Amino acid sequence: MGTSNEVNVRKYCRYMKIQRIIIVVVLVLFLVPWITHYYLSTVERNSIHITHSAHSHADLPEDLSPIRGGDLQTRIEELLRIKGSVSSELREMEHKRQRLLSEIQLYTKNIEQLKIELSHQQTELTRLKISVEQAQVAQREALEQNTPELALPKRFVPNQLPPVLPALSWQLAKNCRMFSCFDHSRCSITSGFPVYLYDPDEYPVMHYGWDIDGFLKTTLKQALGYNAHFTNNPREACVFLVLVGEALRDSDDISDHVSKRIDIPVALDSKALKRLPYWGGDGRNHVLLNLARRDLLSNLGDVFATIDTGRAILVQSSFTYNLFRPEFDMIVSPVLGPPGGDVWQECPSMVPARRKYLLTFQGEMKKIPQKDSTYYSTAENVHNTKNTEYTELDRFIVQHLKSLAVGTTNDKFLFEFECIPASDDSTNSGDLDWGLCGTDSSRKSVLKESTFTLIFAPRAPKLLTTSLLQARVYEALRAGAIPVILGGDQIQLAYNEVIQWKRVCIFLPRARVTELHFLLRTIPDNDIILMRRQGRMIWERYLASVQSTLDTVIAVLRERLNIPPLPVETVSAISVFNDTFQPIQTIITLDTEPEESLGPLEPPYNSPAFKRNFSLFLTQSHEIWNDYGDPFHLYPTLPTDPLLPSDAKFIGSSRGFRPIGRGQGGSGKEFSEALGGNSPREQFTILLLTYEREQVLLDSIARLRGLPYLNAVVVVWNSPKLPAPDLRWPDIGVPVHIIKGPRNSLNNRFLPLDNLNTEAILSVDDDAHLRHDEILFGFRVWREHRDRIVGFPGRYHAWDLNTQNSWLYNSNYSCELSMVLTGAAFLHRHYLHLYWKWLPQAIRDKVDEYMNCEDIAMNFLVSHITRQPPVKVTSRWTFRCPGCPQSLSEDDTHFEERHKCINFFAQVSV
Amino acid sequence: MGTSNEVNVRKYCRYMKIQRIIIVVVLVLFLVPWITHYYLSTVERNSIHITHSAHSHADLPEDLSPIRGGDLQTRIEELLRIKGSVSSELREMEHKRQRLLSEIQLYTKNIEQLKIELSHQQTELTRLKISVEQAQVAQREALEQNTPELALPKRFVPNQLPPVLPALSWQLAKNCRMFSCFDHSRCSITSGFPVYLYDPDEYPVMHYGWDIDGFLKTTLKQALGYNAHFTNNPREACVFLVLVGEALRDSDDISDHVSKRIDIPVALDSKALKRLPYWGGDGRNHVLLNLARRDLLSNLGDVFATIDTGRAILVQSSFTYNLFRPEFDMIVSPVLGPPGGDVWQECPSMVPARRKYLLTFQGEMKKIPQKDSTYYSTAENVHNTKNTEYTELDRFIVQHLKSLAVGTTNDKFLFEFECIPASDDSTNSGDLDWGLCGTDSSRKSVLKESTFTLIFAPRAPKLLTTSLLQARVYEALRAGAIPVILGGDQIQLAYNEVIQWKRVCIFLPRARVTELHFLLRTIPDNDIILMRRQGRMIWERYLASVQSTLDTVIAVLRERLNIPPLPVETVSAISVFNDTFQPIQTIITLDTEPEESLGPLEPPYNSPAFKRNFSLFLTQSHEIWNDYGDPFHLYPTLPTDPLLPSDAKFIGSSRGFRPIGRGQGGSGKEFSEALGGNSPREQFTILLLTYEREQVLLDSIARLRGLPYLNAVVVVWNSPKLPAPDLRWPDIGVPVHIIKGPRNSLNNRFLPLDNLNTEAILSVDDDAHLRHDEILFGFRVWREHRDRIVGFPGRYHAWDLNTQNSWLYNSNYSCELSMVLTGAAFLHRHYLHLYWKWLPQAIRDKVDEYMNCEDIAMNFLVSHITRQPPVKVTSRWTFRCPGCPQSLSEDDTHFEERHKCINFFAQVSV
Repeated sequence: MGTSNEVNVRKYCRYMKIQRIIIVVVLVLFLVPWITHYYLSTVERNSIHITHSAHSHADLPEDLSPIRGGDLQTRIEELLRIKGSVSSELREMEHKRQRLLSEIQLYTKNIEQLKIELSHQQTELTRLKISVEQAQVAQREALEQNTPELALPKRFVPNQLPPVLPALSWQLAKNCRMFSCFDHSRCSITSGFPVYLYDPDEYPVMHYGWDIDGFLKTTLKQALGYNAHFTNNPREACVFLVLVGEALRDSDDISDHVSKRIDIPVALDSKALKRLPYWGGDGRNHVLLNLARRDLLSNLGDVFATIDTGRAILVQSSFTYNLFRPEFDMIVSPVLGPPGGDVWQECPSMVPARRKYLLTFQGEMKKIPQKDSTYYSTAENVHNTKNTEYTELDRFIVQHLKSLAVGTTNDKFLFEFECIPASDDSTNSGDLDWGLCGTDSSRKSVLKESTFTLIFAPRAPKLLTTSLLQARVYEALRAGAIPVILGGDQIQLAYNEVIQWKRVCIFLPRARVTELHFLLRTIPDNDIILMRRQGRMIWERYLASVQSTLDTVIAVLRERLNIPPLPVETVSAISVFNDTFQPIQTIITLDTEPEESLGPLEPPYNSPAFKRNFSLFLTQSHEIWNDYGDPFHLYPTLPTDPLLPSDAKFIGSSRGFRPIGRGQGGSGKEFSEALGGNSPREQFTILLLTYEREQVLLDSIARLRGLPYLNAVVVVWNSPKLPAPDLRWPDIGVPVHIIKGPRNSLNNRFLPLDNLNTEAILSVDDDAHLRHDEILFGFRVWREHRDRIVGFPGRYHAWDLNTQNSWLYNSNYSCELSMVLTGAAFLHRHYLHLYWKWLPQAIRDKVDEYMNCEDIAMNFLVSHITRQPPVKVTSRWTFRCPGCPQSLSEDDTHFEERHKCINFFAQVSV
Repeated sequence: MGTSNEVNVRKYCRYMKIQRIIIVVVLVLFLVPWITHYYLSTVERNSIHITHSAHSHADLPEDLSPIRGGDLQTRIEELLRIKGSVSSELREMEHKRQRLLSEIQLYTKNIEQLKIELSHQQTELTRLKISVEQAQVAQREALEQNTPELALPKRFVPNQLPPVLPALSWQLAKNCRMFSCFDHSRCSITSGFPVYLYDPDEYPVMHYGWDIDGFLKTTLKQALGYNAHFTNNPREACVFLVLVGEALRDSDDISDHVSKRIDIPVALDSKALKRLPYWGGDGRNHVLLNLARRDLLSNLGDVFATIDTGRAILVQSSFTYNLFRPEFDMIVSPVLGPPGGDVWQECPSMVPARRKYLLTFQGEMKKIPQKDSTYYSTAENVHNTKNTEYTELDRFIVQHLKSLAVGTTNDKFLFEFECIPASDDSTNSGDLDWGLCGTDSSRKSVLKESTFTLIFAPRAPKLLTTSLLQARVYEALRAGAIPVILGGDQIQLAYNEVIQWKRVCIFLPRARVTELHFLLRTIPDNDIILMRRQGRMIWERYLASVQSTLDTVIAVLRERLNIPPLPVETVSAISVFNDTFQPIQTIITLDTEPEESLGPLEPPYNSPAFKRNFSLFLTQSHEIWNDYGDPFHLYPTLPTDPLLPSDAKFIGSSRGFRPIGRGQGGSGKEFSEALGGNSPREQFTILLLTYEREQVLLDSIARLRGLPYLNAVVVVWNSPKLPAPDLRWPDIGVPVHIIKGPRNSLNNRFLPLDNLNTEAILSVDDDAHLRHDEILFGFRVWREHRDRIVGFPGRYHAWDLNTQNSWLYNSNYSCELSMVLTGAAFLHRHYLHLYWKWLPQAIRDKVDEYMNCEDIAMNFLVSHITRQPPVKVTSRWTFRCPGCPQSLSEDDTHFEERHKCINFFAQVSV
């Protein structure tokens, strides 16, 4: 085609002048490039696809574009015009396109919004439906429930003095049991067990010349004042306490009356007893307290031996088999401790398990004077062997032990069968029992080095227990030495109707002394620690102070009668607003609605409380006395309350249960509809401590709107500056209580307030930023671990490799975890009570001192009781809101204090 | 520049001819477009950046490219040549480039491989380092350990008959205690407590005309045969059992000798007792078994009343206060059950908590005949009230109860104070105790409908316990009715030195009858179930059969002496290969090396065993008797063995502990270096059951190579067809034991084999496909939950909404979880023992019947004991290898059977 064009050009040139030719050429020169360009462009564009090496090496075109003759000028102009119009049309179209595009975008956006709205509405509808359904179930349950709700019953007490009845014969009194000698009619199970104390000064029961130890008199009255069972009204009392001892002869010193021990029984004036105004002829429901303190040696339980005590219950720390009436009289530990308060300071560390000495004994026994062997020769002596033979056995034991100490093993023993330095006569108990050597502190220093310590049962087999024996047990437990009682099958220890002493002491028959070393060697570290800890717990709770002794005596009596303890005290929640002030409420809408229904929104539903008042001590008393529990108080619920088996909720006990998918399980909708799990439905309370960060707090509260299972929000206002009256409190659909903190203390975070109506407490920092789904996940996990702390910020206690003797607080993202901070954690309400009443005061003081560590203290408390770590949920590590003002924990000294806290707490707790 | 070019062209044209002009023009036409094109292209390319709407509307260029004169032809050719050479050069370069590229790729690949190799080598090195380090720690520990390893000690028994000693005076015998009347020298704590039984036929101790119940004689001998403590050798025996009763008069029927009750004490021939060959003069270490079975009424504990039994221990189910020597004599329950075997069939369901009747009583009491009131008038009668007054109280109680039954509450009572139909005289106990009404099955049908059942303490206060009272307790517990014992402070129940009866029965003083209804009403469902379950457990374990009675009597005596039980039997592991055959081992290399070190590879380290033989029953006997435990056997370790506190491993008890980062924690390397946690280091054993899938098995074993903490692999070969001798067993670095299954049974999966040397057992299907990191994650989690099943495939028991009375097995991916299948789960070795010895036989039979459900049974067992769900780890749901032959579980009937199993097991277990 290019060649034929060339021929045309030549023909045309022949008839034209050069000028014209030039014009034409010029025109051609104008047009041809343009047309050629078009073709070339096309070619080049195609070639680009083939050779992408470089565009500068484009191949030359082999042919040229055709050129047509005619009025090119016009055509050019036309073309230009067309081009112009096309251009403007194009621009117009472009505008239009742009407009349409933006319109479409607008519509799409609107549709998206509508869709979101729709899904929100649907979620809302689902949530409402679920809520309605749950409400219907609750209503149906309420209707079906034909038994009335049980609450803590009203106190029901007698209102009369005991009538006078004829005295009991000595023989009958000797066989007294609760069923035959106790008047239950004064002690209704709803009476609260009121206890009356005869003032020892007002009603002396001692013979002239004798008096009760002054310290005991004072502190006992004081201690009873702190006991909630104490009453001043004898008309309502269930039992009447009479302080009988420790009786000391006024004018004599101790050593004097020891040597005249034979006179002691006359100390008690039996006529004075009968003159007591409420004695009622036979001493019904009277408790004669004969406590031992200074005079452990002479107190051999014979103060009552010759006295008619009628139906009164004897409480003392020495008993003969003859005098002791099982399940009626009570053995107490001697009162060797302080009046009350913290006692942990007196105890050494629990670890290491094995101490310097495997076994120690320090004691001295008098030679047997022939004249004073009455204790063996009575008819009650069950041995057919002569006294000398019995002494023979003792001699063999001593010899055997001495041979151990010089034995070939590398176990260390410390045996002192004679006191070094020699004891004065006053601390030598005579031939009946091994006397103590040295002083309290010298003995303590040896016991602290002893893994086990040997205690001999009294030599006289007629003795069931003695003050001296129990004093040895007391000192051993205090120092963490495990008591090994030789002749342990002969004796009994204090409160043994409730305390499992077998977990604390090793009881061995004398005959097994030959197996003693082998036995002690086989006890592994974990059992040593277990026994030591158990002993420490028993000592601290029941023996350590006058207060604990008195509380225990009263609690044991109460327990015998199946009367529940008095309910634990709560702290009354006082609003920061006065009665007339109405805080401004503001309706809030959340920026981000939750995308799915997480559960039903229901009206407030409080956790049932005080349901087990009368059954708890039937089924779990052994645990409460010997494990985690508190036998002195009644709590609304316990984290360890038993669960029903999983079939009970389908067969007969469905009330309150919300099985997932009505029992067939499921995920998604079915899961979010119901709480599921092995506990009935419940809600939780959010507990917040705040200090002068009003906006942070308000934002935090606002974020809680629409949170399912939320019962209430309780804010403890720690600042003395009250909230500004113009604050706009967000209305989140559940009550928000703003409570005045007693004073600015971090301990206020765990106040056992009386308006906490649920078992589950979500403790959060005022700046914690948790999503609703996270909170509910935590709640569901907590429901499966009700006795643990279940929360979000995990921490742990690391060993300090530098010092090798202390702990470090560690907040690294490590694979280990031993704490979950209460800045964002669920915990049982019970632990708030324990934090305030059960934890040693020193720990709360340390929290106040540092203004720090309350969360660590709570972790120690819960783990101390459960012996379990907390549960961390979600994999998040930080929970504070990003924009909030800096909190305490950013402080430089913060970590330093927390190291110190951990080491201090580890010292206090066991 | 373009304009000056145009002028040159015009000048040139004036002097040339047209031909030349045309050639020039043609050339120009050739060249100009090309040059123009170049410029235009540049322009257009720029313009593309500006107007990206469409390329067809490109603007026209305003100027033209310059054209130079000269030998264009040459230049074009030159250009063409250049182009050609450039092209070929380009092609060459392209080839080169390609070659280089592929070379680079090759190098990169090599480098990558080297890097992987390096990282593997490094991992291997790290692992080796860790292993070496751990080995060094272990070695150091081994050196430091100065105490010898303690194992189960050898039995150490006496080898002589008891020497004859003078008899004990009656008065002394009356006060017998273990410390004064028992000869400990025959019962070393390592003796294993051998028990000898006088054959009742060989050594009759009854007067002429009396004989011991034949059933008792036979079954007792049989039962003792099953008791591991039984010995035929009197020289080594610790205690000697003498079967004294139940004594029946040969010639008389029951009703006859009831009416002549006063004669019964003469049944025992005191001279015959003293003639027993090992009596030793005073009956030391003799146990006189007086069991009650058919004759509950006349058995009032007076068979020994007039007989001198010396130092022998009396064991019977009726005692007077006068006769009973606390902590020496023993109360047993009457022997009312079958000789032995499963007893669960006799028990109704635990649920619903509340049954038709709140409280029931059925019984009858004879009028008091004046002549027979000796039981009240003895000196031991502690009441100062007359008998009539006591009867008065009973009358008031009956009246009060009757008024309850017609009361206004909607609680249902069933009280029958006279038998309907009237009982024959033989079942009426007379005036001392309430007789039983009706038959065993008629009483059972009422008790099954009773939430609580009333039991009266015997009317005579001198009675400590009676067979009749205990028979009532027995029947109540069997039927799941909670016994409420009025006068409960008077009586004692069987084995009360070890059994916490307070958790089983409600003991009330008679005086509290007025509070009875209130008290029972307040007991919530969970406590009802708790008490019922506890009662069922106590009944099943200690009372239900002759075997359990005998085992319990022996265990209580053994416990008194602090002698541990005998170790539990294991199943000896017999290899499928005979002694001479050496299976072919093959070295394997894994296709995929693990990318990181997961822990040290160490030599086999067996879990310590039998460490707590002598301390377990000191510290945890109360739990073992009353909770999860088994007091009849000694186990190597328990899942509930106490842990040391977390500081002990740094202070004094570091042996075996491998704290992460030596205590400072950490993740990554530190984490994989050490096991961490609160238990000392340990390994686990993989337990596999296989059935005719040899290649699948071999592949599974091969995959275990290099798995840290693996102690051994034990394969139970369930098929009778032995493995082909030419199988090539992979060498995985730890022993692989192939054990012959006793017979093809799925129960073999849990055989307590004697070659399982670790506490942790990883039970896996032969086709399970678990990654090493998953296994170790499971192991670490199990170490924190040693008493639970910790594994991978989660399942749950769903409620069948259609039938509303049964369970469905559910393997959906739901949010609920109650089982973890043992196809891939860690569990404690202890549960293998319990599966074989403790689980009712009916469950293993069901597993054999269906060839299915053994994994469900194990889940039931563990949850039954722990009352806890299992722990699922990882989010994976399927674990079978993809290419493996189809397993059982794909079967159609598989699920149907599993539904049935769940419902059956739920019936059997409590």
